[in-house]
Amino acid sequence: MQGQESQSAELPGPVCARTGEADGETVARFAELIVRFAANVQPGQIVAISTEPGKLELTRAVAERAYQAGAKFVDVLQFDLHVKRSRILHAAEDTLDYVPPWYGERMLALGEHRAARVALTGPSMPGLLSDLDPVRAGRDQLPFLRESAQVVNARTTNWTAVPCPTQPWAQFVYPDLEPDAALARLWENVLHICRLDEDDPVAAWQARQDTLAGVAERLTGHRFDGLHFEGPGTDLRVGLLPSSRWISARFETVDGIVHMPNLPSEEVFTTPDPRRVDGFVRSTKPLVAGGTIIRGLRARFEGGRAVSIEADAGGELLAQYARRDAGACRLGEVALVDGEGRIGPLETVFYDTLIDENAASHVALGSAYEFTVEEQDFDAINRSQIHIDFMIGAPEVDVTGLTANGERVPVLRDGAWQI
Amino acid sequence: MQGQESQSAELPGPVCARTGEADGETVARFAELIVRFAANVQPGQIVAISTEPGKLELTRAVAERAYQAGAKFVDVLQFDLHVKRSRILHAAEDTLDYVPPWYGERMLALGEHRAARVALTGPSMPGLLSDLDPVRAGRDQLPFLRESAQVVNARTTNWTAVPCPTQPWAQFVYPDLEPDAALARLWENVLHICRLDEDDPVAAWQARQDTLAGVAERLTGHRFDGLHFEGPGTDLRVGLLPSSRWISARFETVDGIVHMPNLPSEEVFTTPDPRRVDGFVRSTKPLVAGGTIIRGLRARFEGGRAVSIEADAGGELLAQYARRDAGACRLGEVALVDGEGRIGPLETVFYDTLIDENAASHVALGSAYEFTVEEQDFDAINRSQIHIDFMIGAPEVDVTGLTANGERVPVLRDGAWQI
Repeated sequence: MQGQESQSAELPGPVCARTGEADGETVARFAELIVRFAANVQPGQIVAISTEPGKLELTRAVAERAYQAGAKFVDVLQFDLHVKRSRILHAAEDTLDYVPPWYGERMLALGEHRAARVALTGPSMPGLLSDLDPVRAGRDQLPFLRESAQVVNARTTNWTAVPCPTQPWAQFVYPDLEPDAALARLWENVLHICRLDEDDPVAAWQARQDTLAGVAERLTGHRFDGLHFEGPGTDLRVGLLPSSRWISARFETVDGIVHMPNLPSEEVFTTPDPRRVDGFVRSTKPLVAGGTIIRGLRARFEGGRAVSIEADAGGELLAQYARRDAGACRLGEVALVDGEGRIGPLETVFYDTLIDENAASHVALGSAYEFTVEEQDFDAINRSQIHIDFMIGAPEVDVTGLTANGERVPVLRDGAWQI
Repeated sequence: MQGQESQSAELPGPVCARTGEADGETVARFAELIVRFAANVQPGQIVAISTEPGKLELTRAVAERAYQAGAKFVDVLQFDLHVKRSRILHAAEDTLDYVPPWYGERMLALGEHRAARVALTGPSMPGLLSDLDPVRAGRDQLPFLRESAQVVNARTTNWTAVPCPTQPWAQFVYPDLEPDAALARLWENVLHICRLDEDDPVAAWQARQDTLAGVAERLTGHRFDGLHFEGPGTDLRVGLLPSSRWISARFETVDGIVHMPNLPSEEVFTTPDPRRVDGFVRSTKPLVAGGTIIRGLRARFEGGRAVSIEADAGGELLAQYARRDAGACRLGEVALVDGEGRIGPLETVFYDTLIDENAASHVALGSAYEFTVEEQDFDAINRSQIHIDFMIGAPEVDVTGLTANGERVPVLRDGAWQI
């Protein structure tokens, strides 16, 4: 974990050792992969980009590639956590959950216009909100919008979330490196986990996704009634719905546009039964929720509900989130990650859920994805304004499939598929 | 003009000589003046901030002050000319005037919500669009929205436009200075023209606005039928409407919130008769329209219409703008500026219309302000999707009032009021 200073002077070509920034050509290749493959922007589409301060260069490169791909309009929205911090510090408490109506209306309009959506993730200012009152901070869930789940479930937009390195993020991940070296290291690793260090990144992703699609198909074929996670601090049973279908992150819109909603993605996932989750679980990695880092999370579930949520840091904020609505304390996703991906072997905590959740099996509190169940189970899946993933997998956490007639089928042992 | 290097080592306190950035305390004082005085944010208001890359520090300071002043929500929108450049270079020509419906809807919603609006001006990337095809560039008029004029005329928002120095802007204004010195000089001058170098900037602005309100009242009292501008390259008669009323930039919303729509503002202005503008005019300063700099503008008017528009640079773009709609080639504003303001004596072209227009008398092509005429003339005033100011005043340009019975009344001579 971290502390790999010895290699910092031998950075590969595409990263500038002086500033740690990736060079223009690398950024352009990354933007090309994002636009042409991950989001798969089509001629005539509106392209919405969600970004943050410090991500200007990649934002511009994505916008340029999108226009080159025939975009009708590129609509960039930058969210600044510093402004959110001022709000949580100073605004009247009863206004903190206010969201101007045009935020959600724009999101719904993106769906109606069959837009493409690109989000550049990565904590741009890690820890910026960590010292705030968690009750106040928990009331403001922006930039998360409840309308996003609606649009995702409607499958009207081809979308992707992709990490974008920034200096503060790099220093947070690699505190022992000099700032420039830290940024160079983060770029190097992000490019690696996005398979941009391959001659043909698209072919590499297609191959990996073919493998995961096969795993998903076999998992669905087992028609498990539930999964059992067992490891240090974890003994959790997660029920599945009769029609729960496992998929990998190769999505298709209602118009047939194939896209990768997450880049990187190493997971297969489905929708659990929000009424049947029991036991206790310990997170295997920190997570970032609304700008706050939550470390050492421990949760206990009874009858589907998280009846206790504690953490070494940030636990109160997560507990506050989990009180948001009736579904916020129940699970909306269960995902399995093997040891063959590119993230786990780096043994690094990136503090970006997009990356960290693809290093380890995970579950999410909050809203479920409709398209992983059949219509018969639409009423049974979890609904919520939140969706917060947390990592519960590790090589030492066994995952076992539970069949309806009581059989136990090994699924993951020491990070390797058993099915 | 420019080339004042000798003073660059003797910068006053509030500007950091090493980086040229204003210090935190100065930025905070500026933000305070913007929020409490210029926009006059009220408790419970939504505050919309329009900004650009490179203006992050002041944007954040304004957001923080707004929340401290009781704002309900601060909605920051950043417009990036680099993305606009990509669009003009690559997008299909027939899409270039497309604006997503949620842009205008948000603007109208700000009016409905009785929001405050702050725009941070100043060319963030001067000349970035200058090499583009003017016909293509002229089709994309963002960030200008036609709904802005609607909201301004409805007087539902307390709003202000204020300059925010950036490094590229500073180097453009002071090309002979080192980058840090240029930025320091621009900050120094912006703080000076915003009267932030006064112990009590608000009192200084109130005094100046009281003077201009008096001038406006006397001008209105004359009930001129028109104005005559005469100087080198200029012989222009601008008709006024029967109810044309002169005002200074101290506005009041329908709810009685007094605000300064421009900071700085040294002008008095009214709405001309768009059918009665005749003669020729030469601009006395460059202007920036949609990111392009227009220099050495010469225009000829007949019966209110600009029948010829030429310029040493950027003329085609402006001509393209003037073909936008029926009102785009007619005047919507005439403004007078005396020599007592703080901008003219600096003898500097700032390439920010907000500043430059307050150094010199000016007219604007396009939409008029409804509230400078009585209802009887609402049908007569100019309507357009554009509003582009250009400077036609200078000490050597005489301004004479024309009465309905043929009298000539001196108004401005050598920059001094004669009324």
